[in-house]
Amino acid sequence: MIEADFEVGVLRLGHRIVRDKRVTTHAFLVSRAFGAKAFIIHGDKDSKLEENARRIVKTWGGKVTVEYSENWLETVKKWRDTGSLIVHLTMYGMPVESVINYIREFKRILVIIGGQKVPGEAYRVSDYNVSITNQPHSEIAALAVFLDRLFQGRELYMQHEKPRFFIVPSPRGKVICKNPFYKANRFE
Amino acid sequence: MIEADFEVGVLRLGHRIVRDKRVTTHAFLVSRAFGAKAFIIHGDKDSKLEENARRIVKTWGGKVTVEYSENWLETVKKWRDTGSLIVHLTMYGMPVESVINYIREFKRILVIIGGQKVPGEAYRVSDYNVSITNQPHSEIAALAVFLDRLFQGRELYMQHEKPRFFIVPSPRGKVICKNPFYKANRFE
Repeated sequence: MIEADFEVGVLRLGHRIVRDKRVTTHAFLVSRAFGAKAFIIHGDKDSKLEENARRIVKTWGGKVTVEYSENWLETVKKWRDTGSLIVHLTMYGMPVESVINYIREFKRILVIIGGQKVPGEAYRVSDYNVSITNQPHSEIAALAVFLDRLFQGRELYMQHEKPRFFIVPSPRGKVICKNPFYKANRFE
Repeated sequence: MIEADFEVGVLRLGHRIVRDKRVTTHAFLVSRAFGAKAFIIHGDKDSKLEENARRIVKTWGGKVTVEYSENWLETVKKWRDTGSLIVHLTMYGMPVESVINYIREFKRILVIIGGQKVPGEAYRVSDYNVSITNQPHSEIAALAVFLDRLFQGRELYMQHEKPRFFIVPSPRGKVICKNPFYKANRFE
């Protein structure tokens, strides 16, 4: 259902291997869990992080891709050339609720999230600079709330294709199930 | 407006100084920006992180407190004894939308977020184990979406008391304003 709706890419600017390892991983996990199709890392090439991310997809399902961008402006251009809207999440931008309906008219969206230092071009090449509160907080949280508004909460019920394990919601404790069809998938 | 609604505390379990510095800071920033009243850190005592957090409050306003908990079960007991509901955010829990209306009946809520290893007690002492999707992602994102559902989006328009600086939303670029009344505040 979400699939037919929006094709979302997330471009993470300025990743630094040591400092940003966990934050970028969280951003990837949110991108996947909240329905993005592609996660693109700019900055340091971090093969270990990419590998971990792909392993998560193998274990928990879905088909989000993990990509590396050496030149983020080219990545933006590539997405724009294929009809995408470019959205930059920043505490300086316009309140999400004031622009989300315009954004929802597009079916392909590239969401740019920054690290510590975001180049000025990010503000200029984006069609929308969008804030999730005008307070300093977290690109991880901003991304989650943005995607939640974009998908209008439907991402919470998204099924991820071919998981190895899945979780059954439980009021107390942990219920983890093995997907009985997983083995078969391996031979596709 | 949010103030009259809910008094929310966020309890971060198992903080580790080096590894969790940025993730815990993000969790604090989200707590503040999304309307929590107290942020309680359990695990390593991290005075530098606490100091940074308090400086953020001084700069951007608000009155969220930063506390340290040596014994998190005692913190839970203290909150419960003063009429709080205890909510634990976990990917194994019940979908947020299935329980949020029950949670909203309480006016004081302690939200527990974990790190890598969450003790089993967290599942048992909580009134609700709540999931924001049953997928692995980020306690920072889970906290943001949970508070967004709790406050029903009103946290996006929250004014933080006595900021030194504030941001004026802008479609492009950065507009940062000094609060002209800030100096006066210093002498209160």
